[in-house]
Amino acid sequence: MDAITKAKKAAGEKAAALVQPGMLVGLGTGSTAYWAIEKIGQMVKEGLNIQAVATSIASEKQALALGIPITSFSEIQQLDLDIDGADEISEEGQLIKGGGGSLLREKIVALASRHRVIVGDERKYVKTLGKFPLPIEVVPFGWELVFKTLQALQGHPTLRTKDDQPYITDNSNYIIDCSFGVIREPEQLHQQLKTLTGVVETGLFLNLKPTVIIAYENGDVKTI
Amino acid sequence: MDAITKAKKAAGEKAAALVQPGMLVGLGTGSTAYWAIEKIGQMVKEGLNIQAVATSIASEKQALALGIPITSFSEIQQLDLDIDGADEISEEGQLIKGGGGSLLREKIVALASRHRVIVGDERKYVKTLGKFPLPIEVVPFGWELVFKTLQALQGHPTLRTKDDQPYITDNSNYIIDCSFGVIREPEQLHQQLKTLTGVVETGLFLNLKPTVIIAYENGDVKTI
Repeated sequence: MDAITKAKKAAGEKAAALVQPGMLVGLGTGSTAYWAIEKIGQMVKEGLNIQAVATSIASEKQALALGIPITSFSEIQQLDLDIDGADEISEEGQLIKGGGGSLLREKIVALASRHRVIVGDERKYVKTLGKFPLPIEVVPFGWELVFKTLQALQGHPTLRTKDDQPYITDNSNYIIDCSFGVIREPEQLHQQLKTLTGVVETGLFLNLKPTVIIAYENGDVKTI
Repeated sequence: MDAITKAKKAAGEKAAALVQPGMLVGLGTGSTAYWAIEKIGQMVKEGLNIQAVATSIASEKQALALGIPITSFSEIQQLDLDIDGADEISEEGQLIKGGGGSLLREKIVALASRHRVIVGDERKYVKTLGKFPLPIEVVPFGWELVFKTLQALQGHPTLRTKDDQPYITDNSNYIIDCSFGVIREPEQLHQQLKTLTGVVETGLFLNLKPTVIIAYENGDVKTI
């Protein structure tokens, strides 16, 4: 295991340690959330009684394979704790998410949770958002028109692809990745994008006041 | 054919008469747009050369069966004329659409069109919007949370169903129908709803400045 994977594993496990008996837990998606889910699976095997909602089909499969009981929003209305990764975490706790393609479910779960923990390695922790391309989930029908609008907004859009076909989200949508440069006013940008017809959600996760756990390659794990 | 069907046919055919050779045309969805598409199909058989984008799978099937050439936004960026129905048309030309379930594609097509014609019978023409339930297209994952928010907003939400299952749109989403009462500030309401995480689009079609063609049961057809 290389240093960065070790760091991700350490951060994920530190987040998992926050899960307490009886909790309703949101399970994130991505390479650091993966380790949190592994650890929670181990805790469940050792007798921990929780229920979880997964933010992607991939995380749900992982959780079910580990024996973590999965529930849904038809059964519950609120979660106690959401553990997820991020592609960028600003010093103010603002996030860019969606590199893994699950931004919409991740945001729904994050908003439904009373407390949020964001895990990541030191490369994700930045002063200001904007280096990582901003993922925007869009409706396939007429995506070309949204793309054109994003060009006009200087977003330098790229349609995300997989095997030369448009990447398709768990919600049957496409993702357009944008580069707006340094994002000084994330709320204004999110609002402007979310109100576009054809845009389902943006990867800007704002004002969620998460607990942030950062893993450093030297082995340190800091909670911010 | 009963009086109201005759009226819808008359309005649809009057709209179709606005289609000119070489145009790129948006084809709406619903019981009045149906008659416009039938008429356009007849005009195409008689030699009219146009291309069309359909706002629903149903309208696309109808158009193809009639021999109307169908294109898409991968080929074109703007339409010349969009002909569609509405569930409510206010005196200011503001609309509620989505009773037929195609609001998202209908809005994308309407926004991509340089000129819009809205057809309807006199029952649709109102002083102020709000009697017809407002359709809101939502993401299936976590729709229960949006529903709860709409309850809190006094929207008296109902999940649309078909054969006792949630109704599924052409975009694989659900529709929640709301009753906010008389809608005095449609822009504010649309903005508030569209920015909710999980909401894809609302049935409020605002500031599109359509030409409105109203058919009356007595046989009159008025262009407003």
